[in-house]
Amino acid sequence: MTIVNLDHMSTNQLLPEVQKAMIEAVKKNYGNPSSQNADGEETLGRIEKARASVARLINCENKKEVVFTSGGTESINHGIKGVAFANADKGKHIVTTNIEHNAVSKSIKRLSQMGYTVTSVSVNDKGMVDPADIAKAITDETILVSVMHSNNEIGTIQPIEEIAKITQEKKIILHSDAVDSVGVVPIDVQKLGVDLLSFASSTYYGPTGVGGLYVRRGVRIWPIIDGGIQEHNKRAGTENIFGIIGMGVAADLAGKNMDKRITHLKNLSNFLVKELPNYIDEYHLNGDPAKGLPNLVSFAIKYIEGESILLMLEDDGYRVSTRSACATGSLRASHVLMSIGLDHADAQGTLVVTPGMENTKDDIIGFLRALKNIVKTLRDISPLYRKN
Amino acid sequence: MTIVNLDHMSTNQLLPEVQKAMIEAVKKNYGNPSSQNADGEETLGRIEKARASVARLINCENKKEVVFTSGGTESINHGIKGVAFANADKGKHIVTTNIEHNAVSKSIKRLSQMGYTVTSVSVNDKGMVDPADIAKAITDETILVSVMHSNNEIGTIQPIEEIAKITQEKKIILHSDAVDSVGVVPIDVQKLGVDLLSFASSTYYGPTGVGGLYVRRGVRIWPIIDGGIQEHNKRAGTENIFGIIGMGVAADLAGKNMDKRITHLKNLSNFLVKELPNYIDEYHLNGDPAKGLPNLVSFAIKYIEGESILLMLEDDGYRVSTRSACATGSLRASHVLMSIGLDHADAQGTLVVTPGMENTKDDIIGFLRALKNIVKTLRDISPLYRKN
Repeated sequence: MTIVNLDHMSTNQLLPEVQKAMIEAVKKNYGNPSSQNADGEETLGRIEKARASVARLINCENKKEVVFTSGGTESINHGIKGVAFANADKGKHIVTTNIEHNAVSKSIKRLSQMGYTVTSVSVNDKGMVDPADIAKAITDETILVSVMHSNNEIGTIQPIEEIAKITQEKKIILHSDAVDSVGVVPIDVQKLGVDLLSFASSTYYGPTGVGGLYVRRGVRIWPIIDGGIQEHNKRAGTENIFGIIGMGVAADLAGKNMDKRITHLKNLSNFLVKELPNYIDEYHLNGDPAKGLPNLVSFAIKYIEGESILLMLEDDGYRVSTRSACATGSLRASHVLMSIGLDHADAQGTLVVTPGMENTKDDIIGFLRALKNIVKTLRDISPLYRKN
Repeated sequence: MTIVNLDHMSTNQLLPEVQKAMIEAVKKNYGNPSSQNADGEETLGRIEKARASVARLINCENKKEVVFTSGGTESINHGIKGVAFANADKGKHIVTTNIEHNAVSKSIKRLSQMGYTVTSVSVNDKGMVDPADIAKAITDETILVSVMHSNNEIGTIQPIEEIAKITQEKKIILHSDAVDSVGVVPIDVQKLGVDLLSFASSTYYGPTGVGGLYVRRGVRIWPIIDGGIQEHNKRAGTENIFGIIGMGVAADLAGKNMDKRITHLKNLSNFLVKELPNYIDEYHLNGDPAKGLPNLVSFAIKYIEGESILLMLEDDGYRVSTRSACATGSLRASHVLMSIGLDHADAQGTLVVTPGMENTKDDIIGFLRALKNIVKTLRDISPLYRKN
């Protein structure tokens, strides 16, 4: 059976152009870019070309500000721990929010085991943080503020520019996890005013296992992976050549086709939001779809469980998600959904629908039809539903 | 011009079987292994197959003891810093040697910036560490001993089994950097008695950007990359799927063909050592070729500079190395060569020849003939040579 993928947040297929570039690179059999010879120089050239593509996508002042990593999670760990370690002499306090991805929250939790203190700021019922709350949380000991650009469960886009004005004035380093934004919506690191920004290639149809960290020139940060002098001394280790080449091609395409992609994805998301009440009742839209990511619709269906809906939808040929794939295996209700005020049951009943470029309105209609039947079946056997 | 590659330590070509597997995987377009659906499970299956292959190559008790990383450098950082951070409550002293790869020495240097203390043990003129010196260096505060399995500039293989007896008795964690050994010589983690062992895929004709860390069950270690629950909670981040698949295939081939490879490479190395005096004089063999890595011959040519020889050899179609590719761009004399007693001039005059499976005795003869002419040319213009 063909599966209609409406879970692009966790799985993006490689674009044909990316596949082609990676296959050519594997056939070409590139060598170690640090080798002092002609082959090494050619490989280095391919890496630098990819770096320029990625730097263009986020509008770096200089392409050297892009550090290639093994993915969004490493970028986030590098940004947060690298700053915390390098600036421990100035202070050990970190400000963040309640709805960060676990790569951020667990990096910060790790630091708290090492003597750092943390203030985690709440968000409103749409998942928005108030910059004034960030300002209030900053103390004389604060060395880092980390606020995500967009949320992977509810799509909320945070007011990073306003937060940057606060951190710049107070001379505190600002990191933003933009893993679900870069390549999806326009990101301009200079306009945002961030010091560090984490992102991943797989978000925009590039390979997994490769990502980037934007490090504004002059930011005091340590590598988390020490050794050789690769990546301008910011990240040691022989480069993931095939991954980086794929990421570069995907970045070029993301930049070139962004407007077209946003229009298509926003149309599908809007259509889903508009049609939803014609198929199911008693649901709650999470976040603020009009202002959030164009490729995400998140809603809590009352009285039934997301996991059950997911399995039945898969049987019907539709794939969505209940939450971040990174939290798979964790049985606790989502901290993001609890933070925006959902109760435990509604958090468990949440579906995250993330359409991709190959999806059509027919896919959305098919999904809604399948969902309607599943919701009826599950509610018929739900003790919660009968009680209400 | 075709280049004869005698620098396999820095550049290994992918094997055709590895290329084929990676290209198929890119075409197949594997999804996120953490996705809760059939595609995710298939991808996960490919990763677990590769893990079994790698575990077999180093004889793990359980394949879960293999943690996939982004390469040898990350594995080393993870092993060293992960243990240092997790065991800081027990003590902050680390024992290592003077001839470690910079991934080890710089990880430890980083820890010394964070309040850890280090004892670095010397080696003899063959580059061998005396286990008794390791025993003497251990204090009540010692939490970690890190000794490389083999050296990438002189090929010396350390007595890890004897060192493990000491660390086991004193209940101290032992890490070994085996990046240049795994896939080249037989490595049995259980026989060696190590707690942690770092390795890389590219050493044995697999892709760059992927490696492994063996973590014996029960070892107290923190991830250095926190976030999702991938890699049994030991290393977060969506996996480098294509790299891991390539690494698995390369591991199977390395295990299957190891005896054949060792015989071939040892023959070439022995031939080079035997023939060398027929082509040049006044040179010094580094390390102990008879007991070292089968694929490495290191020698210091008196009165002339390795860098100049390298460039002239490349013009003649032969590629060797002066030192680790990871130290490229660093102009200082090799700390390894200085540690085994070479003076600055001899250290700068050292060539590292690392033949690979495609090389033949004719390649060695061709290299020696080219080297003979180059040495004569350079010595004719060397003030040092004329003075002596």
